[in-house]
Amino acid sequence: MTIVQIYTKYATIYSITNKQIKYLTALRNKKYRQQHGVFLLEGSKIVSELLHSELKIEKVYAVAEWAAQYHSLLQKKGCSFEVINNKTLKRISQLTTPHQVVATAEIPQHAIAPKTLAKNYHLALDRVQDPSNLGAIIRTADWCGINHIFCSPNCVDAYNFKVVQASMGSVLRVKVHYCPLETLFKENAGCAVYGALLDGKNLFSVDFKAEKKGFILLGNESKGIQRSLLPYVDVPITIPKKGGAESLNVAIAAGIICAVANLQ
Amino acid sequence: MTIVQIYTKYATIYSITNKQIKYLTALRNKKYRQQHGVFLLEGSKIVSELLHSELKIEKVYAVAEWAAQYHSLLQKKGCSFEVINNKTLKRISQLTTPHQVVATAEIPQHAIAPKTLAKNYHLALDRVQDPSNLGAIIRTADWCGINHIFCSPNCVDAYNFKVVQASMGSVLRVKVHYCPLETLFKENAGCAVYGALLDGKNLFSVDFKAEKKGFILLGNESKGIQRSLLPYVDVPITIPKKGGAESLNVAIAAGIICAVANLQ
Repeated sequence: MTIVQIYTKYATIYSITNKQIKYLTALRNKKYRQQHGVFLLEGSKIVSELLHSELKIEKVYAVAEWAAQYHSLLQKKGCSFEVINNKTLKRISQLTTPHQVVATAEIPQHAIAPKTLAKNYHLALDRVQDPSNLGAIIRTADWCGINHIFCSPNCVDAYNFKVVQASMGSVLRVKVHYCPLETLFKENAGCAVYGALLDGKNLFSVDFKAEKKGFILLGNESKGIQRSLLPYVDVPITIPKKGGAESLNVAIAAGIICAVANLQ
Repeated sequence: MTIVQIYTKYATIYSITNKQIKYLTALRNKKYRQQHGVFLLEGSKIVSELLHSELKIEKVYAVAEWAAQYHSLLQKKGCSFEVINNKTLKRISQLTTPHQVVATAEIPQHAIAPKTLAKNYHLALDRVQDPSNLGAIIRTADWCGINHIFCSPNCVDAYNFKVVQASMGSVLRVKVHYCPLETLFKENAGCAVYGALLDGKNLFSVDFKAEKKGFILLGNESKGIQRSLLPYVDVPITIPKKGGAESLNVAIAAGIICAVANLQ
């Protein structure tokens, strides 16, 4: 018998318990994720990236074909895993078209080595609410080599399922921190704060290679950066405008600024 | 009696017919939009922009307060409008929290003045599927002063409700065309085609001011630009990468390229 056949047979006989399904469903809630320190991931690509990451995996729930394909890696990682049938996958999946595998992993606690922040550019996000936006920002930061994102406590949770999926796995690499931004800026006075504002310096006139590194600060989707943070902004920057739109989507603005600041 | 009071009273007595509700609901479908040449818009901001645009408005359905506020503009435009109560608004709205007003407008047919395309940058989109992505791209193009977007026929419909809303009204200004991209590139051989690819020239090394203007071509979310279009690409361009992400979201990539090409 091949591994697929064994796994398929196993999945037809055994099934995960209702208690497990309840647990997985509860993790869709931020409260439960924080209580258990665990978050959900779905889909072959993201879960295979999880297997290659340093994050501590709690459990993998996969259909026979996937479990057989990743058999050695699962064994090597000493991963707790459960083979499930498609019916069970549908019950635990949050996707309209489930992709073979669901996993739970520990929410990482990222430490920051002291005095390292002044050497690079990082993102600071004030009250970003939309999961797709935060996901896209994490993915973009990952592309641009920006390793830390500091979110104000009232930003959407980075381990929200929609954020995780929109990040396309980048949430496994980029270090997302939640902290009051005032405190962050005060404690890192050696870092410059570049604030994305509507009346700042033309982004393309800033020589990011020569300038002091630090935080690229972006604000809420409709309200922008809150007033109390403005005194910390050292360099107000603006993406110049040629057309009629009133504003840019925050993830697009983040993409343009990160690329210009860190990729040139 | 104030206008608001009159309108409020009107809306409690009269109601739009089930036939009208059925028509508005049917417009959520691309087939019906094309059949009637009409699309839906929602929310105070977008509909007020519609009133200021050149598009032909079919009808505005607004709650009393909104109708009273925009009374003169509605009269001036000679707009057909219907005052509705909140219950009716909820029935016709596609938003979880309806915003005062729903409108229908004619889908515009944009003409292109001959030989004007070679003077500017435009977007060409191959099979972009996600409504939020196309909406964000239209909004970004509008910000960047890119007035034409050419979509392959199998891109998501720009008059899809989600696209319209994600564009934040920019779909009223940016001219979106649907045509086979091969034909477009063949008929406009005087325009350069800049293709967003993974192994192209570093975006930041291209001198867009000195280069020949033309089309910035971006491909499908997961499959990129289709092979049959590659022979038309004059300058393959790549956003340099410093981190771990495999790819960028197509709207973010469009944002970075449009900003670098047209805003510097």
